[in-house]
Amino acid sequence: MTDTFTKLISPRSVALVGASDDMSRIGGRPLRYMREAGFAGKVMPVNPRRETVQGLECFADIAALPDVPDTAILAVPAKATLQTVRDCADCGVGSAVIFSAGFAEAGEEGQRAQAEIVNLAREAGLRLLGPNCLGVMNPTTGYYGTFSVVLDNALLSPGPVGIVSQSGAYGAHIAHLARARGLGISHWITTGNECDVDVSEALDWMVQQPEVCVIMAYAEGVGDRERFIAALERAQDQGKAIVFMKTGRSSVGAQAAASHTAALAGSDAVFDAVLRQFGVHRAASTAEQIEVTYACAAGQFPTGNRLGIFTMSGGFGIQLADDAEQAGLDVAPMPEEVQDQLKALLPFSSPRNPVDATAQAVNDMDLLVRYVREMMTRGGYDLFAGILGTGPSTQTFAEPLKNALLAAMEGQDGKLKALTMTAPEDVVRSYEADGFLVFEDSPALTGALSALHRFAENFARFRNNEAVSPTARMELPQGPLSEAQAKDILTRAGLPFPEEILVPYGDDVANAAEKIGFPVVLKICSPDIAHKTEVGGVAVNIATADAARSAAAGILIRAAEARPDARLDGILVAPMAPEGVEIIAGVTQDPVLGPVVLFGLGGVFVEVLKDVTFRAAPFGVDEAHRMIREIRGYPMLTGVRGAAGGDIPALAQMLSDLSRFAASHADRIESIDLNPVRVLPAGEGVVPLDALIILKEETAE
Amino acid sequence: MTDTFTKLISPRSVALVGASDDMSRIGGRPLRYMREAGFAGKVMPVNPRRETVQGLECFADIAALPDVPDTAILAVPAKATLQTVRDCADCGVGSAVIFSAGFAEAGEEGQRAQAEIVNLAREAGLRLLGPNCLGVMNPTTGYYGTFSVVLDNALLSPGPVGIVSQSGAYGAHIAHLARARGLGISHWITTGNECDVDVSEALDWMVQQPEVCVIMAYAEGVGDRERFIAALERAQDQGKAIVFMKTGRSSVGAQAAASHTAALAGSDAVFDAVLRQFGVHRAASTAEQIEVTYACAAGQFPTGNRLGIFTMSGGFGIQLADDAEQAGLDVAPMPEEVQDQLKALLPFSSPRNPVDATAQAVNDMDLLVRYVREMMTRGGYDLFAGILGTGPSTQTFAEPLKNALLAAMEGQDGKLKALTMTAPEDVVRSYEADGFLVFEDSPALTGALSALHRFAENFARFRNNEAVSPTARMELPQGPLSEAQAKDILTRAGLPFPEEILVPYGDDVANAAEKIGFPVVLKICSPDIAHKTEVGGVAVNIATADAARSAAAGILIRAAEARPDARLDGILVAPMAPEGVEIIAGVTQDPVLGPVVLFGLGGVFVEVLKDVTFRAAPFGVDEAHRMIREIRGYPMLTGVRGAAGGDIPALAQMLSDLSRFAASHADRIESIDLNPVRVLPAGEGVVPLDALIILKEETAE
Repeated sequence: MTDTFTKLISPRSVALVGASDDMSRIGGRPLRYMREAGFAGKVMPVNPRRETVQGLECFADIAALPDVPDTAILAVPAKATLQTVRDCADCGVGSAVIFSAGFAEAGEEGQRAQAEIVNLAREAGLRLLGPNCLGVMNPTTGYYGTFSVVLDNALLSPGPVGIVSQSGAYGAHIAHLARARGLGISHWITTGNECDVDVSEALDWMVQQPEVCVIMAYAEGVGDRERFIAALERAQDQGKAIVFMKTGRSSVGAQAAASHTAALAGSDAVFDAVLRQFGVHRAASTAEQIEVTYACAAGQFPTGNRLGIFTMSGGFGIQLADDAEQAGLDVAPMPEEVQDQLKALLPFSSPRNPVDATAQAVNDMDLLVRYVREMMTRGGYDLFAGILGTGPSTQTFAEPLKNALLAAMEGQDGKLKALTMTAPEDVVRSYEADGFLVFEDSPALTGALSALHRFAENFARFRNNEAVSPTARMELPQGPLSEAQAKDILTRAGLPFPEEILVPYGDDVANAAEKIGFPVVLKICSPDIAHKTEVGGVAVNIATADAARSAAAGILIRAAEARPDARLDGILVAPMAPEGVEIIAGVTQDPVLGPVVLFGLGGVFVEVLKDVTFRAAPFGVDEAHRMIREIRGYPMLTGVRGAAGGDIPALAQMLSDLSRFAASHADRIESIDLNPVRVLPAGEGVVPLDALIILKEETAE
Repeated sequence: MTDTFTKLISPRSVALVGASDDMSRIGGRPLRYMREAGFAGKVMPVNPRRETVQGLECFADIAALPDVPDTAILAVPAKATLQTVRDCADCGVGSAVIFSAGFAEAGEEGQRAQAEIVNLAREAGLRLLGPNCLGVMNPTTGYYGTFSVVLDNALLSPGPVGIVSQSGAYGAHIAHLARARGLGISHWITTGNECDVDVSEALDWMVQQPEVCVIMAYAEGVGDRERFIAALERAQDQGKAIVFMKTGRSSVGAQAAASHTAALAGSDAVFDAVLRQFGVHRAASTAEQIEVTYACAAGQFPTGNRLGIFTMSGGFGIQLADDAEQAGLDVAPMPEEVQDQLKALLPFSSPRNPVDATAQAVNDMDLLVRYVREMMTRGGYDLFAGILGTGPSTQTFAEPLKNALLAAMEGQDGKLKALTMTAPEDVVRSYEADGFLVFEDSPALTGALSALHRFAENFARFRNNEAVSPTARMELPQGPLSEAQAKDILTRAGLPFPEEILVPYGDDVANAAEKIGFPVVLKICSPDIAHKTEVGGVAVNIATADAARSAAAGILIRAAEARPDARLDGILVAPMAPEGVEIIAGVTQDPVLGPVVLFGLGGVFVEVLKDVTFRAAPFGVDEAHRMIREIRGYPMLTGVRGAAGGDIPALAQMLSDLSRFAASHADRIESIDLNPVRVLPAGEGVVPLDALIILKEETAE
């Protein structure tokens, strides 16, 4: 039996409520499009004021329908929506698309109206798409549950691209651009206000459709962390690429997003890092989203990134090499002996890589074949990029050039063939039909190839992924926690704290200091004092028992004066920390993506350069390594100018352990700060010097 | 009288040597294009084996021509070129375009052949374009001295865009893209091997053509610093925009560039900074080059950067706001009271900025007019961006929408009107005809508007620019210089060194130390020891006369042991430096752009982050301020987290003085290092702690 969600997107029968004879109206367009597309299912117009609509028998209301439809399209005004949803529920319709605006996005009254509809639908087990959405398109079956004007001039062709968009206008825009780029579309879902179906669920469904290779997604935010991450994981598992446009990255954009839909705006930096963590390509522009999707649509994800560049113009070759290097592709030189052989063939040529056969190759196709063949059979490249410029725009040249390239690439079937060229659409399509990816611009080509390779890496990484289990659940105390309590908890979670002794208020610190070993550090220990240095609560480099006693007394006096209400648990005696690279690590709760671990270098890196990165918790040691490599200041950890680097494996372990603890205690942890952590030289571990856990406010039962 | 260069680009008569009846051949295409374009000048085919070519009388050789042509197009093989150039010279032809490859780019033999041609031409006063170039196009007069296949399907239209390209293929490519973008082209010059005319000279000529508003340039490098900078300065002076594609920014690209043409590859980072210094927009991609040029072609450079965004789709509005903020535009909110008024008009709307009138504005154009008018009359915006999406792709909607926008913008004549939309070409052209700039994508729009604003700023800056005179020339000593000598020279150049005393070898340092005031620093002073700490040649924090004597003795012994050959001038006694932000400054000689000043923050900023920037010498204090603001670590100088910042005006003065000295002594200075320089708190100046000047090797007379 087909599930309800599938019936919403791919129905065999549909009621169009508010059906209209006027084919330019919201109630007229869906039927018009379905008729143009030859939708094989049954469409039942509903409109109490019509006998027929666009030649089909029309029914007065849902109850009057001869069959229960798989889904209903509600092309009715906001104020009629509740009753129509009720009618659907009463008749056992499984799902409905609501076009109308004027709900949660339109102030309190709209929010109330939407909530009423949601409650009704939930009780009846009715699934809803929208409101305030452009609906659904299914070019494969010809089902067009949409009034988007993007179909005015042409329908979509079926193909390997799925589109999921919160914004109807954006979804229509990328559908248009995809169509213009020659891409076929399997399904198109816009979620609007997401009163029920959201981008995550639509994504997850789309990933499971066998014809889908790649999904273009648009969202301003996501509502359900678990469902979102599950969809991204499933995509990786199935080797499906997701190319995401997430808006609201600027402060103005985030404000606009907050006022636009009900979507919660979490931190854009967190969202960005989490997309990276789960192998999603985040597009910086719509053009990039289209180009990467275009490349993915062929379903070929190369595992290597060595790029051989063939050109007949030196200038273009240099430009492509620049862009390739920037995109992280490996423009490895040709083997010397092959270079010598090609040079002997044509002394002006420059066969290093880019392999520049000069304009001579335009006049002598045999030469072109020879160069490209040598490059691809003997250069060890995974990827081929050919620069054809305006060559194929001349009809007489387009076909022989393509044939020469095909001859040269014979036997290289597994290798991705990409071209930059400018040519009429029919020429581009003929190249594509022979397996070439065609781009107009070298950054488009290199960006897309690099994205393909990253997808391949991420798919492989997901398959080989270490299992990550959250830390076993422990009982956390109530109320504010002192440093000693925080360190105790995190020690039980596996984090490597040095031995420290809490000397209760009033006791002599000397014994503890002897036991730790001089010189020591003394710190006020209080659940109510998070920032110890601000109250004079820290003394370092204490070398004798007397000095320790005197320092402890001073600390207690200053703390009591500065914070008379604070509970003073006593003095924490700690060893002096060994030298190392200072980093910060922590946990925050993102409003959207939940518990995330933050990591950055200390000092100017975090304070001036905001050089930090994030990961959703939990994650394993491998992911922690990727996280560590991501910051700009990473060379500080590998060692700079003779300075020792740090124990990166120990740091990765600590970050992973922190994430596992954060994941299993997300309901209790508001934030954790380990600032600073000293990363000691390789093999010597890491030392978190301070720890602060802030618990969530208790909620009344 | 028309000058020779102008006759080369805009001749009234031309000889086509190697003329052919075959219109697909190099010797056939120029004549074919000129005939198609209706070139009003006289074309004289030259070919000893033809009576006529394409219906025109053909001449056996240059000497047989009835008149001396303004210029000659040499469509002859490499080996026939020398003789043809000689013929031109003998007959007094002023200039020639050489198409053939096989010269300097093709190894030693080709280099010799090119040199021979250059010598001959120089003696005869004959100007040459090429060899290995695609020639010249002049759509205004219909002169096509080119064999580029880009004209196969259509000629170019005249217009405000100039194109100057080292690479013929790239030049043809951007001509094609510009044509497709609806842009008219005034002149098109490709310089190839640049045996005589280079990109700088072509740029300089282009800037002076009254019909040119904006120039697209392509180069892998430039040969003549003075001419290049002069051209850029003239462009700024005349308010003409240059949009530059400079390749070779990656290591692979730079290698390819070096092996491609004779163009010297200087440092790409220096080139980049110098383009910024002289107000040039460097495009990161060809698409960006076209989009920025498109925006400039209207000739309107807005002095303000406050952007008002009108949208009917929230998602698109957020995306454009994100892109605008990233591009440095000011998406300032609407005044509260105007927001309230608009909100009263349509409660769902979000009139903050982006001003989102929702899809309601599609149905109600009066609403649209009202929103846009309020926004532009009361929002205080300099720039208007409207998001139309796929709206205008529906013919019935395109015209009314345009009219509504025009009505709304009435009285806003000075303000730039930009749109993102997707529509058929004729619709786009009709919007453009009414003064709209039309983009497909929001990053294209925001990038272009931001570029226009930067051009306006740069033009204004150039007009108000402080005069910068190089330092008066001074006699520099020969041979390696000691720290004391370097500081003495730079002190005379105006740099602010603290008082230091050189105590000659053998003399007592105590008096000098007393005079400087304890504590002092002692340093070995030798022209042969650049890195003093490496030989144990520095002692800091010396507090007494005895300590000074003992430290000095130790320094001299260690220096003599470590470097027995070094001349030891003595001990430099210096005051302890006050605390401050450490920066580095210096001078290097770029192989292409000559003396440049380098500036960066010390420590991790330079060592890990390579956070440095450059300027061509000389430059004034204002430019130095811009240079200082450019580095990522700039907040260190303004003060971070309560830490004092630095005396930025004093730092700017020092950098400018250093540049003025470097400019007037460029023939003698190989490099200068001031590392470190302490920037003291505001008002307290800067203190360069060390100075190293390396002189150029003397060249034998």
